[in-house]
Amino acid sequence: MKRKQYEKHLEQLEHELVAMARWAKATGERICVLLEGRDTSGKGGTIKAIAQRINPRQLRVVALPKPSDVERTQWYFQRYVPHLPAAGEIVLFDRSWYNRAGVEKVMGFASDDEVWRFLHAVPIFEQMLVDDGIRLCKYWLSCDQEAQEERFAERLEDPLKRWKLSPIDVASRTKFAEYSAAREAMFAATHTEHAPWTVVDYNDQKHGRLTLIRNLLDRLPDTQVPQDELDWPELDHPPLDEQFDLLKPIPPFPLED
Amino acid sequence: MKRKQYEKHLEQLEHELVAMARWAKATGERICVLLEGRDTSGKGGTIKAIAQRINPRQLRVVALPKPSDVERTQWYFQRYVPHLPAAGEIVLFDRSWYNRAGVEKVMGFASDDEVWRFLHAVPIFEQMLVDDGIRLCKYWLSCDQEAQEERFAERLEDPLKRWKLSPIDVASRTKFAEYSAAREAMFAATHTEHAPWTVVDYNDQKHGRLTLIRNLLDRLPDTQVPQDELDWPELDHPPLDEQFDLLKPIPPFPLED
Amino acid sequence: MKRKQYEKHLEQLEHELVAMARWAKATGERICVLLEGRDTSGKGGTIKAIAQRINPRQLRVVALPKPSDVERTQWYFQRYVPHLPAAGEIVLFDRSWYNRAGVEKVMGFASDDEVWRFLHAVPIFEQMLVDDGIRLCKYWLSCDQEAQEERFAERLEDPLKRWKLSPIDVASRTKFAEYSAAREAMFAATHTEHAPWTVVDYNDQKHGRLTLIRNLLDRLPDTQVPQDELDWPELDHPPLDEQFDLLKPIPPFPLED
Amino acid sequence: MKRKQYEKHLEQLEHELVAMARWAKATGERICVLLEGRDTSGKGGTIKAIAQRINPRQLRVVALPKPSDVERTQWYFQRYVPHLPAAGEIVLFDRSWYNRAGVEKVMGFASDDEVWRFLHAVPIFEQMLVDDGIRLCKYWLSCDQEAQEERFAERLEDPLKRWKLSPIDVASRTKFAEYSAAREAMFAATHTEHAPWTVVDYNDQKHGRLTLIRNLLDRLPDTQVPQDELDWPELDHPPLDEQFDLLKPIPPFPLED
Repeated sequence: MKRKQYEKHLEQLEHELVAMARWAKATGERICVLLEGRDTSGKGGTIKAIAQRINPRQLRVVALPKPSDVERTQWYFQRYVPHLPAAGEIVLFDRSWYNRAGVEKVMGFASDDEVWRFLHAVPIFEQMLVDDGIRLCKYWLSCDQEAQEERFAERLEDPLKRWKLSPIDVASRTKFAEYSAAREAMFAATHTEHAPWTVVDYNDQKHGRLTLIRNLLDRLPDTQVPQDELDWPELDHPPLDEQFDLLKPIPPFPLED
Repeated sequence: MKRKQYEKHLEQLEHELVAMARWAKATGERICVLLEGRDTSGKGGTIKAIAQRINPRQLRVVALPKPSDVERTQWYFQRYVPHLPAAGEIVLFDRSWYNRAGVEKVMGFASDDEVWRFLHAVPIFEQMLVDDGIRLCKYWLSCDQEAQEERFAERLEDPLKRWKLSPIDVASRTKFAEYSAAREAMFAATHTEHAPWTVVDYNDQKHGRLTLIRNLLDRLPDTQVPQDELDWPELDHPPLDEQFDLLKPIPPFPLED
Repeated sequence: MKRKQYEKHLEQLEHELVAMARWAKATGERICVLLEGRDTSGKGGTIKAIAQRINPRQLRVVALPKPSDVERTQWYFQRYVPHLPAAGEIVLFDRSWYNRAGVEKVMGFASDDEVWRFLHAVPIFEQMLVDDGIRLCKYWLSCDQEAQEERFAERLEDPLKRWKLSPIDVASRTKFAEYSAAREAMFAATHTEHAPWTVVDYNDQKHGRLTLIRNLLDRLPDTQVPQDELDWPELDHPPLDEQFDLLKPIPPFPLED
Repeated sequence: MKRKQYEKHLEQLEHELVAMARWAKATGERICVLLEGRDTSGKGGTIKAIAQRINPRQLRVVALPKPSDVERTQWYFQRYVPHLPAAGEIVLFDRSWYNRAGVEKVMGFASDDEVWRFLHAVPIFEQMLVDDGIRLCKYWLSCDQEAQEERFAERLEDPLKRWKLSPIDVASRTKFAEYSAAREAMFAATHTEHAPWTVVDYNDQKHGRLTLIRNLLDRLPDTQVPQDELDWPELDHPPLDEQFDLLKPIPPFPLED
């Protein structure tokens, strides 16, 4: 998909995202979006596209590190709960509690019994959040291995992206089918009426982003909240310049080359 | 400044930012960057430019809401301290403890006595952090009122930016000179040998960003840490496709129009 | 009940409490005790009796203040979840999430709808904790109004206890029957097989404490974990005295009078 | 010291503690008490004596576990700062940041350089707190090795106290003189005009407690805040009994034996 075309469509969606954020703030709505998918599927880029236009004091991105030794012994959901949205907040989870059904299962970090109990508990946990009024949207970003391999290759070669590759990625490559199986088991257990999954094709990431954001907006009621009026009088003096006594600006970055 | 030119220069800097992050992680360095400046000066865009290329699990952006009633009674620095960087972390403060010397002073949210005590305490507080080994970089993003007015006008007109305007902004416009005076008092008290301020001209925001990032990189030692080797064998099977049984991807966003 | 008799019986129980704490630590068990009951029923004294003999680094008492404005908009259980026990911990809740079904309902701080939704959610919430392996013990400390009035009178008169009385207590006195009705509705909704309530008669507080602690111990498996051996050699020198150069102890509190 | 005598004197002090807490609450004063001293010196008992009579929602006891791996890399004071008192709060630190100058130094958990830097930083850190208006009281509880050995022996023999003994205690016994030297170095560096140490003889623990509490009260201004009036009308009906429909109280603990 061409960048121009993408940007044109995205801008349309951005207007709706901004309106949605205004609505959430005015009404105290709480929006919780989970982004799951294989490495390279496009979670990070989607988060950037959504966050781009929304006040960072209203939107939070949650990307938890691996659990500490103490957290490992707590109720599984305990470390996620403090990040759930308060009134007016939009929270984007870059991976979420579903780690247990994906990477933890496939890589053997969680036992079969732990995974089984997790899959049993999730629908109940999510029911509580939804019953409480939190709007929970769960997305699976899908990409075929061919696309994934291309993106891995790009990460390998591009020094700006090389840090995105980890030894776990190496291990994951040979387990593509196991991840698929884990995902299907996860859907079977957690695709519920109150908290359904939405699968979005991310083989073309730009197209995927548009699809996901469109879907997200469509899930939320189209309630228009007018922008507050703001009285904006003319300045009664010519614009002032910065004047520095103690410190001066440093020389600018040299552009000529 | 032209976008093309900006992007070419930025990419150079991005390579160095990525190398810097690798160095911080490998050595356990802690980097703490404060971004201060008037509304519209360009703090948010600078943060995005820096964060763009760094692992979000290594870089944190701190933009605190106004203090709660309990926080207001605590040691002034108490609510900032939990966000200071741990080993390997880069923390960007989008406004910081300097609020007290700027908006709180000019708008009257803090008393003269509180401001005075704050200005007295800051150099001591920062000395402790620096003595502990935290690398503290303090930036003031400078812009003249003409540029600020243009950006305000853009925010007024562009629905995508309208949310950035608040009643405080209206009030701030008529207090440009007071902010300047407050800033000079702040520099006089807190531009220290161990934690100096750096002023960057942001009348051209793209140029400002390049200047600031170049300066930030120059403040850190140029220690090269080689990228970890990663063994990346060929797949021993043709790339697999995603196969969905229970759920299919939703229809893609319609592009034709 | 006589103090002597009480202390004799309590000491027996203390041995078992200490053994229970050792067992919890060794096995990683998590114990969560909720103490509910009217004002003056004896929650605080019971907590002191239990906590008396257990390492404060292993036992936590949770007595949350009223929720902040932000917390009020979150998932109701959100502010309680961070206090749930990790491996080896014993957590005593001095009042708990059941506030919503008691004081909040009777005093009108929560709407009927909020109370109804709470009562519906609790069994599910607690099922999740119990399924996760947390041992949840819920106690209702019962006392008649005659006993309550005596204790209120004591608080009114005794300057050491006067702070325990609040305007809410005054209001509660005239709502004894409403509290009873609220409690029955709470029992009806939340006395479940997986998380049953235990009612303990606290008209005699000392006797109540013995009854509650006995019951708590009986709910937990009687697993004996032997005390670690500790090699404790003789000192190879006469015991040393503290020697102060810079500072001397202050004069002792004068005992003669 | 006889228990009767102790209790008589303690009760006097309790009245003053209650008045002090009322004063702190009314004025928003913040009180921070550090309790340091060798194992068995009597920190825990002192905390209980002070906390006994004060609203647990106003008084917090802070006994931090050993730092996590992440905390170890942060600014040394970072994990203590969140526990500092807000308006009206009394915080008792059962051991404190001074660990670094005591057990960490003697047992080798901190390097000489870390200890040196800590001792250099403390007076500055404490100056900031005191300048901010926090009332900081630092106590060293002193006991000779003979008393310590007796208490260790009691802990060894009494199953109710056995858990208080740890392998570190064994190691500490043979380092009594090293601890003394470390304490003197700590006093030399941190006994300042703005945050002086107070040494209290705890060879008799009951006497020590009276001395410490008396001193604490004397450090605070003797400002009397009258107790709020409370209108306490007669009940207009005979006192009601608890009536249980769904659940009855369990049988009481059997007293006869």
